[in-house]
Amino acid sequence: MSRTAAALIIGNEILSGKIADTNTTFLARGLFELGIELRRVVVCPDEIDTISRELNELRSTHDLVFTSGGVGPTHDDVTIEGVAASFGRPVVQSEAVAKMIRHYYGDRVNDAHLRMANMPEGAEMIRSSEAPWPTVVIDNVFVLPGVPEIFELKFTDLRKRLDQGQEFHSQAVFTRSGEGEIAGLLERIAKAFPGVMVGSYVKWKAEDYRTKVTFDGNDADAVAKAADMLVDELAPDLFVRRE
Amino acid sequence: MSRTAAALIIGNEILSGKIADTNTTFLARGLFELGIELRRVVVCPDEIDTISRELNELRSTHDLVFTSGGVGPTHDDVTIEGVAASFGRPVVQSEAVAKMIRHYYGDRVNDAHLRMANMPEGAEMIRSSEAPWPTVVIDNVFVLPGVPEIFELKFTDLRKRLDQGQEFHSQAVFTRSGEGEIAGLLERIAKAFPGVMVGSYVKWKAEDYRTKVTFDGNDADAVAKAADMLVDELAPDLFVRRE
Repeated sequence: MSRTAAALIIGNEILSGKIADTNTTFLARGLFELGIELRRVVVCPDEIDTISRELNELRSTHDLVFTSGGVGPTHDDVTIEGVAASFGRPVVQSEAVAKMIRHYYGDRVNDAHLRMANMPEGAEMIRSSEAPWPTVVIDNVFVLPGVPEIFELKFTDLRKRLDQGQEFHSQAVFTRSGEGEIAGLLERIAKAFPGVMVGSYVKWKAEDYRTKVTFDGNDADAVAKAADMLVDELAPDLFVRRE
Repeated sequence: MSRTAAALIIGNEILSGKIADTNTTFLARGLFELGIELRRVVVCPDEIDTISRELNELRSTHDLVFTSGGVGPTHDDVTIEGVAASFGRPVVQSEAVAKMIRHYYGDRVNDAHLRMANMPEGAEMIRSSEAPWPTVVIDNVFVLPGVPEIFELKFTDLRKRLDQGQEFHSQAVFTRSGEGEIAGLLERIAKAFPGVMVGSYVKWKAEDYRTKVTFDGNDADAVAKAADMLVDELAPDLFVRRE
């Protein structure tokens, strides 16, 4: 069975539309490549109680949970407090990280900067090769920052730790057919290959195809055979290409 | 008090990273402009039970719920079934929409196309000026399609219905200061103006500023005064501009 994952995206700026969240898509692609099934994403505001409540549910029902956002120096960065509350642990300062922060900011260092050294008691700090500060990990929860550049750096570093050699195989067939015209065929393919996820995506803007059909699964052979079945049963003039 | 809203984004393609969801940001901005507080977004797979369970929770705890995705003609489009299950209602075919679909597809019409005429029994069908099919509305739940162009068309049409003359006022101050250096000041401003949401966003790529501070609220005067307080207390050489 695949490992399952959930994401908790934290930030008023996402819910007010000020910032478009791109971390979900980056995480989703990365987990997919690792053969980990992202089952649920929740976006919530910067509130300690809300974060704690959401996290309680996500971490008890998924193998891995990734949080994004709310770990900076300002008053609305309360993710660490929320995570700590979820685990019933106090927030403590990491001496090692505080030292790094003092070194980085020098004379300008203040209490706000040092908030970034806070972590739930007993959390692990994973050093990253490129990101400025370590990543807080507690049990099955990985606490990542909202800034996309740093989120991506940190997740990329975590991939080695998460990789268990599982992977998904993918094929795509592009067709000039509308989605409705092949819906019955796709349903038969999905039933014939229960381990293969069959998806279809309509292009509304002009392209050389109208519907892209995707086949994904752990079994490369089943994925290829499912794609074969579509190509074989599709009228030849509707087939565009296969990738 | 502001009305509250939640969104349920439905689709395996979002969770596998095949498609980047843009509907959340579009919806978030639109609701913000209407003075409606988007409190929670959940992304879930195309599964009837999961959709029904998520929707039960979201619709009982928010004034308005918007779903995105899973309303096309294929076997994995099960949102209508999920919504119907949440309300304990059977799925029925809308005669009016079936007629529109038959007219549109002519001789090519099939059962898959006609699935798009399905709705939970007793749902309202809102005709839209530009979108091809009506929008299904049941109680406080608005069922929107995942294709961004159509999602945006339909939500734009719904705005008139949702507009109650409330609105949020926004101001932004751009500064050369780092976020940590003004964290204490921002906290004092947030405490002095409890009805104003204060947000801060760091730019990591080169710009003429380092931190953008935003002020949002229902009271235009309080928003302006909160922004004044930042400008007044900021060192003049750190101020870039105000919008």
